[in-house]
Amino acid sequence: MKLQLALDRITLEEALNIIEQTRKYVDIIEIGTSLIKDFGMQSIRTIRKAFPDTLLLADIKTIDEAEYEFRAVYEAGADIATVMGASALSSIAICDSIAKEYKKEYMIDLLEADKERIRKLTVFKDAIFEVHLPADKDGIGLDRLIKDSMVALGNVQKIAVAGGVSKSTIPLLKEYGVGIAIVGGAITKTIDKEKAVRQLRSIVGGYYD
Amino acid sequence: MKLQLALDRITLEEALNIIEQTRKYVDIIEIGTSLIKDFGMQSIRTIRKAFPDTLLLADIKTIDEAEYEFRAVYEAGADIATVMGASALSSIAICDSIAKEYKKEYMIDLLEADKERIRKLTVFKDAIFEVHLPADKDGIGLDRLIKDSMVALGNVQKIAVAGGVSKSTIPLLKEYGVGIAIVGGAITKTIDKEKAVRQLRSIVGGYYD
Repeated sequence: MKLQLALDRITLEEALNIIEQTRKYVDIIEIGTSLIKDFGMQSIRTIRKAFPDTLLLADIKTIDEAEYEFRAVYEAGADIATVMGASALSSIAICDSIAKEYKKEYMIDLLEADKERIRKLTVFKDAIFEVHLPADKDGIGLDRLIKDSMVALGNVQKIAVAGGVSKSTIPLLKEYGVGIAIVGGAITKTIDKEKAVRQLRSIVGGYYD
Repeated sequence: MKLQLALDRITLEEALNIIEQTRKYVDIIEIGTSLIKDFGMQSIRTIRKAFPDTLLLADIKTIDEAEYEFRAVYEAGADIATVMGASALSSIAICDSIAKEYKKEYMIDLLEADKERIRKLTVFKDAIFEVHLPADKDGIGLDRLIKDSMVALGNVQKIAVAGGVSKSTIPLLKEYGVGIAIVGGAITKTIDKEKAVRQLRSIVGGYYD
């Protein structure tokens, strides 16, 4: 399982410091929605410039203006961009096509998507699907959400989970064969971030068992 | 009917110029999602500083992290913030409460919301409801969308419409008693923006008939 570290509600300087401390132990650095909404595309450009070889996901949460936003994010240096599953299917189709044009990846955020909606979204065969409990729900209901979503996702191969992922919930993600565990506060809110990420990495598995 | 001018996919300098040319004729200036995602909160602060008395809507399109985003937007100087109708109801409840704390307004963006969802959202009695055809649909289907949404909205008083609103569709908005017409490209893409906005204002009605 891969480990994605989401950076949110911090300055760009703090983001650069955390990436420096943690990047050896994570597979994907997520430039969180709050960094983009606080600092704009500069957030992506700054992090890309400092870390030319790190896999960067920009959590732009596109829900309209798909071509404009996806081009902006890829041009700024992101490798993966996100689009909301609640968008019009025609908008997601545009994201799919722009991602392919740039030879980049994209993730469909399933926040608040019901089973019927998830099934409709599985036509996007090349997307990564993100099972996402809203941060506003404080981790409550993550296990139920994963169970229900995995059924609706059927044969989808690339699945990520976010929203209250921590030491105690990672075994459940492994059990369901989730590909990417997305963590944020479980690392960024600790004092010794390197220690926290090493611990999490050892539970997640992968290169740093 | 009020007229809201949405500013998108331009620099902040261009935004300031357009506001200077048009603000006499519009009721609300919208700092579009693209300005926020391109330039961050600086987009709101810059425009607020230049126009201290203009009613500003920040199209932040919150879908999670409701408290953080709404506080950021109001602190930066916006009078109205937007939240997606596709958000968890608990997130929208947070928006409602933060708006009241700041004595500001908020708008629920109904993009891709079906009738059943719209009915659920009408519990938020103090919100402005935005019937919103995705920009990615190029104005196709706006009349049908308005008709269907107005039925589902029932007794809701504060209703805005966006997505392909232009001279030819404004009479339909009037017919349905829509409170706010949101226009973007119909003004910003013209050469003589003052002329375009004066024309639109004369059709919309209000102070500049």
